[in-house]
Amino acid sequence: MDRFQPIIDKLNNFMLGHLRSRRIMLDTAVNDLVNGGGKRVRPLLLILAGEFGDGDNNKLLPIAAGVEFLHMATLIHDDIIDEAELRRGKVTAQEKFGKNVAVFVGDFLLSKAYTLFANYLSRESLLRLNKVVNLVCIGEIDQFEGKYNTDLSINDYLKRIRRKTALLFAISSYIGAYETGVRGRNLHYLYKFALEIGMAFQIQDDLLDFTGKKSKIGKEIGQDLITGIYTLPIILLFKKNNYKKRAAYLLSKEYIGDSEICEIKKLLLESGILLDSKNIAERFLRRAEKYLDRLPENKVKEELKYILDCQLTRKR
Amino acid sequence: MDRFQPIIDKLNNFMLGHLRSRRIMLDTAVNDLVNGGGKRVRPLLLILAGEFGDGDNNKLLPIAAGVEFLHMATLIHDDIIDEAELRRGKVTAQEKFGKNVAVFVGDFLLSKAYTLFANYLSRESLLRLNKVVNLVCIGEIDQFEGKYNTDLSINDYLKRIRRKTALLFAISSYIGAYETGVRGRNLHYLYKFALEIGMAFQIQDDLLDFTGKKSKIGKEIGQDLITGIYTLPIILLFKKNNYKKRAAYLLSKEYIGDSEICEIKKLLLESGILLDSKNIAERFLRRAEKYLDRLPENKVKEELKYILDCQLTRKR
Repeated sequence: MDRFQPIIDKLNNFMLGHLRSRRIMLDTAVNDLVNGGGKRVRPLLLILAGEFGDGDNNKLLPIAAGVEFLHMATLIHDDIIDEAELRRGKVTAQEKFGKNVAVFVGDFLLSKAYTLFANYLSRESLLRLNKVVNLVCIGEIDQFEGKYNTDLSINDYLKRIRRKTALLFAISSYIGAYETGVRGRNLHYLYKFALEIGMAFQIQDDLLDFTGKKSKIGKEIGQDLITGIYTLPIILLFKKNNYKKRAAYLLSKEYIGDSEICEIKKLLLESGILLDSKNIAERFLRRAEKYLDRLPENKVKEELKYILDCQLTRKR
Repeated sequence: MDRFQPIIDKLNNFMLGHLRSRRIMLDTAVNDLVNGGGKRVRPLLLILAGEFGDGDNNKLLPIAAGVEFLHMATLIHDDIIDEAELRRGKVTAQEKFGKNVAVFVGDFLLSKAYTLFANYLSRESLLRLNKVVNLVCIGEIDQFEGKYNTDLSINDYLKRIRRKTALLFAISSYIGAYETGVRGRNLHYLYKFALEIGMAFQIQDDLLDFTGKKSKIGKEIGQDLITGIYTLPIILLFKKNNYKKRAAYLLSKEYIGDSEICEIKKLLLESGILLDSKNIAERFLRRAEKYLDRLPENKVKEELKYILDCQLTRKR
């Protein structure tokens, strides 16, 4: 998404300026995070959706930064849960400074996010956003409780990724638009557009956990599987009678290493599940496209179309 | 502080109702926390300070609950850092459910707190409160960075507990008063009163880490010492030439167990430091009293005086 690099640079600068604390440990952790090469999809959606309105768009940048802080905080707290060593190819905060500091780096980001929201966001938007943050927390706890559960249905999975990812996409787009005065149908379409993109984004993320290259996705392959988080491909595998038994055997092993992951990947390829999953992600993107089509024609719409197209060919 | 039991019961009920999530794990953790017997000093200060104003005092309860959620979240995240097994005599969330869930129980509480603030708090108060939350995070990181540092000055310590504890006391009292229309000098006095109480409260807490009974304070004795957090008594010990060497030797040991803690306690008693620390706490309470004296005479002032007196004779 190179065409957005100027916006992303501006955003990164704003974030770094806003997070300076004169604590070496904190500043290092924060610099690593900001320069860690996130895709910034949420703030981009927020800023672009905001361009649909006529209102003051100067506040979009700080609000977008707040949303990215929120997202970063959940990443950090997520990594504590997953015991992740790599995130976007870099050593995670918790590996570098220990779980202890990582907890408070996350809290620091949350408090910075809420300071920006208190300054720039309307009460209505803040309440809506908070509801989402709440659901994200519940989603994380649900995911934890559902670990190593091979009975998950596709619906359980979709519900989980909706909470975990898609709702924050959707609300980002929503509040960007709302704050510049978009109302009614267009507001709804922008919300839905981002929601569907978020669903596709997470399905692709989960797929990359099997098909991605460590060098590109920046984390170990099969990480979710090892930590007992079963995503769409695994759930589909358990639905196929021919593969169920073999998959159950592999996942029941005490130690799941490279050879088990390699075999799971083979099963996913052979059964056509990788393609099925890809198609499901695409289905969400097609739905996103439908909502996009209903929005009035303008330059921003083309930018959103570009984001959509990038998701269709996403490799990392 | 039995006379406040009716308010505390009302607060607890409100908190429990507001936190229900229909997730067994989450609800259990939250119930444990709310019924865990916290002293609720912050919400009490908030509600009482709010009684000084003429404005609508119905919003004080939800705002007070929000502040207590904030406090609980920092306790949970604190326990992750300290590897604490006991908090208020009960097994901590992280021991019961693992660090992983504890992180998100804390985040869940934070998001609930901010929902209450978005609903009931003015933008001015929210911004002030956020600044404090920010400093609390920085304080926690500073405390972590300063672990096992025997060169801490009394000033470093006072700065730390200001951030870690006293500012949240102060801001609680401040926003309670501000939201019901208190302004000017009285607002300032209420802020300062709570700030000084907060300082004394933390010094006493740190003292109880050495002198308390496990059954009363609800956590292991010498917990801070073992995890490398050196509080006022230890800092004072290092300032006394007669005791410095012995203290340094004890704290440099690889394993600090009951016998080391017992000897440290003996040194603290023998050197008069326990009494010195108690006197320093009292000095802050006397300062609180001065601010209280300047407030207009009314029924609430007596309640605040009662809180002050309780701190003077605090045993847990």
